[in-house]
Amino acid sequence: MDNKRIIVAVDAMGGDNAPGAIVEGAVMAVNGSEDVEIKLVGKQEVVEAELAKYTYDKSRIEVINATEIIETAEKPTLAIRRKKDSSLVVAMKLLKEDKADAFVSAGSTGAVLVGGNAIVGRIKGIERPPLGPVLPSATGTFILIDCGANVDVRSDHLVQFAQMGSIYMKEIMGIENPRVAIVNNGAEEEKGNALVKETFPLLKECPDINFIGSIEAIRIPAGDADVVVCDGFVGNVVLKMYEGVGLTLFKEIKKTIMSSLHGKIAGAMIKKDLKKMMKQYDASEYGGSPMIGLNKLVVKSHGSSDAKEIMNSIYQCVQFTEADITGKIRAKLGTENKA
Amino acid sequence: MDNKRIIVAVDAMGGDNAPGAIVEGAVMAVNGSEDVEIKLVGKQEVVEAELAKYTYDKSRIEVINATEIIETAEKPTLAIRRKKDSSLVVAMKLLKEDKADAFVSAGSTGAVLVGGNAIVGRIKGIERPPLGPVLPSATGTFILIDCGANVDVRSDHLVQFAQMGSIYMKEIMGIENPRVAIVNNGAEEEKGNALVKETFPLLKECPDINFIGSIEAIRIPAGDADVVVCDGFVGNVVLKMYEGVGLTLFKEIKKTIMSSLHGKIAGAMIKKDLKKMMKQYDASEYGGSPMIGLNKLVVKSHGSSDAKEIMNSIYQCVQFTEADITGKIRAKLGTENKA
Repeated sequence: MDNKRIIVAVDAMGGDNAPGAIVEGAVMAVNGSEDVEIKLVGKQEVVEAELAKYTYDKSRIEVINATEIIETAEKPTLAIRRKKDSSLVVAMKLLKEDKADAFVSAGSTGAVLVGGNAIVGRIKGIERPPLGPVLPSATGTFILIDCGANVDVRSDHLVQFAQMGSIYMKEIMGIENPRVAIVNNGAEEEKGNALVKETFPLLKECPDINFIGSIEAIRIPAGDADVVVCDGFVGNVVLKMYEGVGLTLFKEIKKTIMSSLHGKIAGAMIKKDLKKMMKQYDASEYGGSPMIGLNKLVVKSHGSSDAKEIMNSIYQCVQFTEADITGKIRAKLGTENKA
Repeated sequence: MDNKRIIVAVDAMGGDNAPGAIVEGAVMAVNGSEDVEIKLVGKQEVVEAELAKYTYDKSRIEVINATEIIETAEKPTLAIRRKKDSSLVVAMKLLKEDKADAFVSAGSTGAVLVGGNAIVGRIKGIERPPLGPVLPSATGTFILIDCGANVDVRSDHLVQFAQMGSIYMKEIMGIENPRVAIVNNGAEEEKGNALVKETFPLLKECPDINFIGSIEAIRIPAGDADVVVCDGFVGNVVLKMYEGVGLTLFKEIKKTIMSSLHGKIAGAMIKKDLKKMMKQYDASEYGGSPMIGLNKLVVKSHGSSDAKEIMNSIYQCVQFTEADITGKIRAKLGTENKA
C-alpha cells in the first residue's frame, strides 16, 4: 500500500497561522486518510516542537529542514532566486526531483506563482498556468479561472483556462460536460472589451468544451456556469468582491440583530440554521486555489488558512494526483508529443 | 422663480416599467420639489393617458411627442442614427438645443452612451465620459467610476475619471477631499495589470486629487475609498458582483429562515430592522448612474427602475445642474480656453 500513497509537500512556515495551524492541518490530514504521506518543510526544531503536540502515524509525516522563510512583503522573483533554503523553494524542489507529488502553501501568492513556474515547471504547451479556486454558488460550485496568476493575458491563454477548468470540474467535482462561460459586461453579442471580443469566437470554435457564452458578474453567485473564465485581474476582482460583499453584509446583519433585545432573541433562534447555511459558502471547505498546468499540482491556500483548510488543501492534492489531472491536461493540451 | 427651475427631460418610453413607472416618477418629482420642470418625451397619447391618473401642477410637466422607441436589443449606434424620432434621440436634442438642462433614461444603456457622446456632446478636453454611480458602503457611499461606459481605456482617461469623480463626491455628496483609489489585485507596489501600473504614477502626481493608492476589491464594500477608479469592464464586474452577491445571500438567508417554524417566528421579529438596514444598501435611493463629462448631465437609471428611482434620478439632475458640476469640470479639465 505504501508505495501508492500520494506524497504532499507542505510549506510549514507560510501563512498567518504558521507553523501551528499548518502542522495541525497536516496531522489532521494523515489521521483522516490512509492515502497520504506528508513532507513538512520548515525550520526543523520549530516544526518538530509543533508535531510533538499530536498523536499520529509517525511513518507518514517527515520533516524536511529549511532554514529560511519568504515573507509576503518580499519581491517574489528576488526571494525565489536568493532564498535557496526557504521552505517554499526546498519544497518545490521536492516536486521537481520527484520526491513529492504535490505542494501546499499558505505563504506569499507571488512567490508560489513564481516558484511554480520556475521550479515545478509548466506542462509543455501550457503558457500561463492559472489559479483556479472552486467557489460556492447558490446551486453548487464553480471554478474561477484565472483568479489572479496572470493579470495580462492573450485570448489563447483564456482558451487554455477554459479547457483546463473543464477538465478540473469534470474529474475533481464530477460535473459531466461543465458549462463554460466568459466573464463579460453584458450578455449581448456586441459587448466586451478587446480581449473578450477576441476570445469569444475562439471559445465558440473550441471543440472540447461546452461553451455557453458570456456571463455577467451578477449571475456568477447564482451559479449560471461551472467554469468561469477571465483574466487574472478581473478574476481577482470577482473573488475579492465575493468575499468583501459577503463579509460586509454579514457584519451589517449581525450589527442590526444585536442592536435590540428582540433581535438578540431572534438571532439566538436562527443562529444554528444560519451557520449551517454559511458553511456552504465557506470557501475553505473546498481547499485552496490550485495552480493548474504545472508538471505537478501546487495549491495556494489562503494566507489566513486554519488547520481545516490546510487539511482540505492536502486532500485536494490527493484527489488531483489520483485523478491524474496533469496527465489529462498533457494529453489534451500538451505539445510534448506533437509535431 | 420659474426661470430658475431646472428643466429635466425624461425618456418616458425607456425601461422595463415604462411608461407607467416613469410617468409616476416624474409626477412624484414635481409634487415633491418646487425646483424642477419636466419634459416627458414619448408617444403623446400614451404618456398623456398615464399622466391623467395623477394630480400635479400641469404647468411643470410638458409632453413632447416622439413616435419611436429604441429597444434594448438594438445595436446602439444604428438605433441612434436611424430612429430620429425615438424618445431618446428627441430628448437628447432638447439638451443640445438648450431646451432642457439634463436627461434621465431607464432605456438601453448602449443607446444612452452613444447618444450622450453623439448628441449631447462631450466637454472639450474630456475624451471618454464615464458612468459613475454612487453606491452604498459600510461607512457611507462611494462613486464607482467608470462602471461600464468605456471598456477599453488609456491611463489618461482613468486620471480624468479620478478628477471628475472627486468633483462629484465633493459637490454632490459633500465629502471634503475625497479619497481616490484605483482598483487593483493587491496593495503591494508591484501589483497591477499593465494599465494600472501605467496609471498609478500619473494618479500619484495629479495635484488636484487626494490619491490614497490601490484598493483591493474586498475593501470596496467596506468603504475604504470615496472615489473608486477603474476601467468600465472592471467597474461593471464590481457593480454586478455587488448586486449579485447581495441578491444570492439574501435569498439564501430568507430560504434558511423560512424553512422552520422557529425560523419564521425569529424572522418576523427582525424583519423590520433588517428592512431598515437594507434600505441603506438600496442603490435606487441614490438615483441612477450619471454619465459625467458631457455638456449636460445624462443619467442612466436602472432598466428595472420604479417610480421612486426615477424621482431620485430627476432630483440628481437638479442637484448636479444647480451645483454646476459641468462648469466646474470644464474649468478644471476643459481645453476650450486653454492654449
